[in-house]
Amino acid sequence: MSPVPRSLSRGTVSEISLHGALHGGDPSVLRRLNSAATLRALRGGGEPTLSELAKQVGLSRPTCEGVLAELTERGLVSEVAPRSGSGLGRPARRYRFRAEAGYALGIEIDAHWTQLFLADLSGEVVARHRVDLDVGWEPAERLAAVRAAVRICLAEAEVERSSLWAVGAGTPGVIDPDGTVALCTVVPGWHGLNLARELGRSFPCKVHVENDANLAAMAERWRGAAQAVDDVVAVQAGLHTGAGVIVGGRLHRGRWGAAGEVGMLPELGWIDTTARLIGGGRPALGSGRAAERVLVAAGQGDPDAVEMVDRLAEGMSKGVAAMVLALDPEMVVVGGALAGERLVAELSRHVRPLCFSPTRIEMSSLGDAAVGLGAVRLALDRIDERLFHVE
Amino acid sequence: MSPVPRSLSRGTVSEISLHGALHGGDPSVLRRLNSAATLRALRGGGEPTLSELAKQVGLSRPTCEGVLAELTERGLVSEVAPRSGSGLGRPARRYRFRAEAGYALGIEIDAHWTQLFLADLSGEVVARHRVDLDVGWEPAERLAAVRAAVRICLAEAEVERSSLWAVGAGTPGVIDPDGTVALCTVVPGWHGLNLARELGRSFPCKVHVENDANLAAMAERWRGAAQAVDDVVAVQAGLHTGAGVIVGGRLHRGRWGAAGEVGMLPELGWIDTTARLIGGGRPALGSGRAAERVLVAAGQGDPDAVEMVDRLAEGMSKGVAAMVLALDPEMVVVGGALAGERLVAELSRHVRPLCFSPTRIEMSSLGDAAVGLGAVRLALDRIDERLFHVE
Repeated sequence: MSPVPRSLSRGTVSEISLHGALHGGDPSVLRRLNSAATLRALRGGGEPTLSELAKQVGLSRPTCEGVLAELTERGLVSEVAPRSGSGLGRPARRYRFRAEAGYALGIEIDAHWTQLFLADLSGEVVARHRVDLDVGWEPAERLAAVRAAVRICLAEAEVERSSLWAVGAGTPGVIDPDGTVALCTVVPGWHGLNLARELGRSFPCKVHVENDANLAAMAERWRGAAQAVDDVVAVQAGLHTGAGVIVGGRLHRGRWGAAGEVGMLPELGWIDTTARLIGGGRPALGSGRAAERVLVAAGQGDPDAVEMVDRLAEGMSKGVAAMVLALDPEMVVVGGALAGERLVAELSRHVRPLCFSPTRIEMSSLGDAAVGLGAVRLALDRIDERLFHVE
Repeated sequence: MSPVPRSLSRGTVSEISLHGALHGGDPSVLRRLNSAATLRALRGGGEPTLSELAKQVGLSRPTCEGVLAELTERGLVSEVAPRSGSGLGRPARRYRFRAEAGYALGIEIDAHWTQLFLADLSGEVVARHRVDLDVGWEPAERLAAVRAAVRICLAEAEVERSSLWAVGAGTPGVIDPDGTVALCTVVPGWHGLNLARELGRSFPCKVHVENDANLAAMAERWRGAAQAVDDVVAVQAGLHTGAGVIVGGRLHRGRWGAAGEVGMLPELGWIDTTARLIGGGRPALGSGRAAERVLVAAGQGDPDAVEMVDRLAEGMSKGVAAMVLALDPEMVVVGGALAGERLVAELSRHVRPLCFSPTRIEMSSLGDAAVGLGAVRLALDRIDERLFHVE
């Protein structure tokens, strides 16, 4: 017998969202708890037999069989070909989670580029597509370019639009819960746009919009530098500086979606830093590619590039220190187009003396994928809420 | 039949802490869930009959009877005299939570005073005691004065020391999880002291130590100005300025207990503000009573006092704005020895233009009781964890 996959041991009720009143011994709630626990166990990976699964989830064989029948009916689980047996009787049937039952799309829309990630229900990325945008474009042109990129991304992966279960989108600015850009100084014409509604026209499922730094924070915790860290500040270093906050393992948006916006306080220097990068006779930085060139040049020791990175680090340091002092996170992850080892080292050097705690300051391990992957995670979280929600 | 108390409807599993693996249908876990739900329903108040209670918690009568027997055995529930019946048969027995089964003590220790609150298991305060301390005292003298105050407080309420189930204590500074004062510039000699251990010598139960502003935040949410608000920043305005953070309804201590310490950043002005209040030819402010006198004088329009309050508000404003920008809370509650209507109005006037969100900035409704009540809440939370913990 093959060993039971380790991930099966994680199908516990405490990981499953309980909403509303669970009265003692309510049988329909227990049924849904059992279903959710079984699904979560299967999604962890592996192809367990009925006995293995029942044992892991703590159900009787008949109960587990009933749950599997229901999950199969819903298209979420399928039987797989039995492995060759030991010779005694026929080999046991095995089951797996159908990750391909649906897809989540994550879209980053910045001033200078858009980038898309398409992932199955297990979070495995099956397609990725990036297109440069013109910073001067009107919202309509920008949205048309995003829509074209979506078509290409879906076609590449041979995934039908109807298979999309949720879409996440990230963009700079303060985002209202309904997906309206409530404040944005980075993307021209973006302010006041209901991005969720605009993008929603292209999809059969709901579109969830979130601030880009918030999504980067989610991505770093999901599969970046902050895995298993519950309190994280993710700082985006680029033509605009932003921060996203994870508290207790969950995104902290704030009451008006504006958590992390310490950059509004002139004393903390982020406004000047941005102005210096965009203006100041350096218009070449006005694109994502240019930022990448600066980063490469700084890495190669080019004095001008190194100086720009050092000044960026110094300019960001007080705002980062304010975030660290306000939240006392375990870790600060530095990402964005201008994040490199030099920047992180300089930032640490400036921030540490300002703070009480020995907070780790580390570079993103996701490169320019952080926001897009965070958008995927946002979409998958909404899907999970539907799959694992117990009323 | 008397109406079922409204509070009974709150005995739901989602309010009860689930720890570790709850396997589908584990009977001992269900038994403990039932017990916790019943206890929580009874603690909400009222004296329900067995039928009323069983219906509310969603249990069968025999199951509920078994749970009540166990809770009575543990001293947490008692039967009360039945009310006169309708004439048909004997009236039904009724049950109540024994709030007097144990007590929680909350202790505030500041540079200038100590204040104690004693509460029963329902959180009802049964005694309160305040003593002025000398700011120049050594820790040993300070602790001796606190111990004397504890004796007086317990004697006043006629509560035995052995009836204390938990003690909470609040003091300025960054507090390690083990109760050591990791940083304190306000109480002389406090730095490095393991306050939980020092106080622990006087009690048969555990002592939990927390930063004073953190406790004020908990108290404001419990029974102050921020009731039912999940994201709160509580700012203490006094000879030292501090902030405590509630995120998602829970205290956010931060990884090293230092959340809210934006005052360390010189650009935000809290350091200068404190220096100005303590020094600057105004030594009269060097006590809690003096702060109260300033507050009263400002309320009466005394120009010197009003100017001091206005300068305090201005000096605090950038740090408060940084907290609001970092966390985007629903509400800022301003408490502490110098908190009055004038201060809050001035603070709002300075902070609003610096921030994006229309965060409410309101005065504490707890006066000088906030920290002590927060210490009671801290102790009650630890007791609740024991009472409602389901392994």
